[in-house]
Amino acid sequence: MESFSLVTPIGARPRAGVLHTPHGDVPTPAFMPVATQASVKSLSPEEVKSLGAQIVLSNTYHLYLRPGVDVIRKLGGLHNFMGWQGPILTDSGGFQVFSLASLRQISDDGVLFRSHIDGSEHYLTPELSIQLQEALGADIIMALDECPPYNGHASEAQEATARTALWAARCKAAHRREDQALFGIVQGGFSHELRRQSAEAIVALGFDGYAIGGLSVGEPKALTWEVLERTEQHVPKERPRYLMGVGSPEDLVQAVAMGMDLFDCALPTRLARNGALFTHQGRVNILNARFTESAGPIEAGCDCYACGRYSSAYLHHLFKARELLAYRLGSIHNLRFIMRLMEGMRKAILEGTFEGFKGSFLRDYQPTDDEVRVAQKEKWVKRRAGSSVP
Amino acid sequence: MESFSLVTPIGARPRAGVLHTPHGDVPTPAFMPVATQASVKSLSPEEVKSLGAQIVLSNTYHLYLRPGVDVIRKLGGLHNFMGWQGPILTDSGGFQVFSLASLRQISDDGVLFRSHIDGSEHYLTPELSIQLQEALGADIIMALDECPPYNGHASEAQEATARTALWAARCKAAHRREDQALFGIVQGGFSHELRRQSAEAIVALGFDGYAIGGLSVGEPKALTWEVLERTEQHVPKERPRYLMGVGSPEDLVQAVAMGMDLFDCALPTRLARNGALFTHQGRVNILNARFTESAGPIEAGCDCYACGRYSSAYLHHLFKARELLAYRLGSIHNLRFIMRLMEGMRKAILEGTFEGFKGSFLRDYQPTDDEVRVAQKEKWVKRRAGSSVP
Repeated sequence: MESFSLVTPIGARPRAGVLHTPHGDVPTPAFMPVATQASVKSLSPEEVKSLGAQIVLSNTYHLYLRPGVDVIRKLGGLHNFMGWQGPILTDSGGFQVFSLASLRQISDDGVLFRSHIDGSEHYLTPELSIQLQEALGADIIMALDECPPYNGHASEAQEATARTALWAARCKAAHRREDQALFGIVQGGFSHELRRQSAEAIVALGFDGYAIGGLSVGEPKALTWEVLERTEQHVPKERPRYLMGVGSPEDLVQAVAMGMDLFDCALPTRLARNGALFTHQGRVNILNARFTESAGPIEAGCDCYACGRYSSAYLHHLFKARELLAYRLGSIHNLRFIMRLMEGMRKAILEGTFEGFKGSFLRDYQPTDDEVRVAQKEKWVKRRAGSSVP
Repeated sequence: MESFSLVTPIGARPRAGVLHTPHGDVPTPAFMPVATQASVKSLSPEEVKSLGAQIVLSNTYHLYLRPGVDVIRKLGGLHNFMGWQGPILTDSGGFQVFSLASLRQISDDGVLFRSHIDGSEHYLTPELSIQLQEALGADIIMALDECPPYNGHASEAQEATARTALWAARCKAAHRREDQALFGIVQGGFSHELRRQSAEAIVALGFDGYAIGGLSVGEPKALTWEVLERTEQHVPKERPRYLMGVGSPEDLVQAVAMGMDLFDCALPTRLARNGALFTHQGRVNILNARFTESAGPIEAGCDCYACGRYSSAYLHHLFKARELLAYRLGSIHNLRFIMRLMEGMRKAILEGTFEGFKGSFLRDYQPTDDEVRVAQKEKWVKRRAGSSVP
């Protein structure tokens, strides 16, 4: 039911638009901060809003396990529960079942898994995912999909692609709430043929928007863009297009250039809690000794609260001392950096200066190299269960 | 330098006054939130101010070890460093040397200790304590004292009392910055005679204000009040009187009744981070299952941000999920409870209705019983080095 207006001509890449939802409009391209457990870690909804966020993403898997979807429904739905009156998108729960839970027995019917919190057994089906998301009451909800692993067997990708189409049809059939938009997800692993098949099957079902899933799952960046390029051409241009799980500054610029509209990623806030803060030259590690007596802000010219009020020496101290305020100031800085980047890209698109914006941004920004990035991601995934990061 | 005006007649108990400092006036009685490491844990200075706090306390011991007093001096002093433009009081470092550090070799000259952070050796003297506090630049600084343990030998209390007087004289002699007020500390353990001796020796030196130390260190509450009563009579009535380390709601009411003006304690924020939240009936444990679906605030009628915006079910969820926002909302609630209590007491004093206020508050408020309280404190002290509490 939600609708989407393109501001740029249909077929343009990059593109600017407006996503209309019951809780307000979202100018696109847009980045969605992640409120995994109904909270953007360490931040109040007022802060999230003041950073420029127009929409947040919450995780159905987490909320289903704790506090339980029924609790949230009784308390007036997710918007009321978490005190965020802007638009919300919930994911289907699928990605976390495959990445966080244990004992996954998957069939075309659904997936049996054990909670990562208490080991309890649960069974997720496309119908249940929709029912849970309807009870949570987000503005945009997602079809249940299966994301095949990078470096898996070809048969895995094939099976996941077929199952994703099957589940998408069941999600669409199960969907009742007309005030919620339902997005389909294109899978297909790293095969161009499977990507095309998946896109055609999902698009044939007719969704309010389309997500491209299964990218940014450990593959080299060049492959991400190659597969995205080949997938994008099969996804309708008049509908919002959501690239799932992408959120590093350089990747957002690249993906916007390729015609994507919506993004989510825990990276900016997770990095922030580890002291890795964005600047236009790349990430800096605020724990580095060079910040010990540094009177300047994290980045000169940054309009965020942390940069406006505190020296990088103070942030360095808070991170060294593991003060809770550190995680909050770091999150504010990184999210504001991303939001300002999105605002800058949209403005450049509207003014017809995107190519220059992109060139200039990517010339200055030193991304973390692929090898380090993959190693960091693996380390994080391993640590996640024990969670030493606040 | 700072001066103190009594609003109530001299000799009145309880009393209301105004403490004048270079960074503003502080209406008394006043509670000082603790910013141990230059941050009231999880809160921004703007939030601390909006809670009604007029003055905060920071710990010289912690700041000396990390980031180092010299760093803070170079960055413009503690007010600039932490972004708090209101009054600050720093303690002398003594209490933490005795409670946190290891390998303490104490003599009349000073105290040798090892850092609880990295085991490095340091030597604290009265002169160094003053020098450090002058470099930090707080509005009110404290003389170095020795706090004898509860249940120690009589000779320990005697020695600590004599040394406290000796050190107070050296602190006074070392003190140069005329824009900073210097407070002396009365010790004397749990002996009325030593308390009298200590008070007379410290008062004879002439300080801008007087603190009563060595109470609330594990003794039964009845003994706290008995010793306070016998100490208070030897402390000048025209100067501000600071009861160190007291901060539970019921104790604040009792101590204000006995003529105390200033208080500090990490208890309200530490309890908050453990999910123990204040109400007029006593503490509640927000992790309790009864809050799972509770749509109401922590306490009906509370004017804090957490109670105004969120259900107790949401707080329960955040605490269960160990979301960082939990510690922040809990701290906001508990500190606002304490600040409102202080405001209520001051108003009642000025209106001549304090006895009724006190009776009504203590009739409703169920304090945690002595045995539980002492056990909790011991548990916390043991855990502090490892610090599982954020």
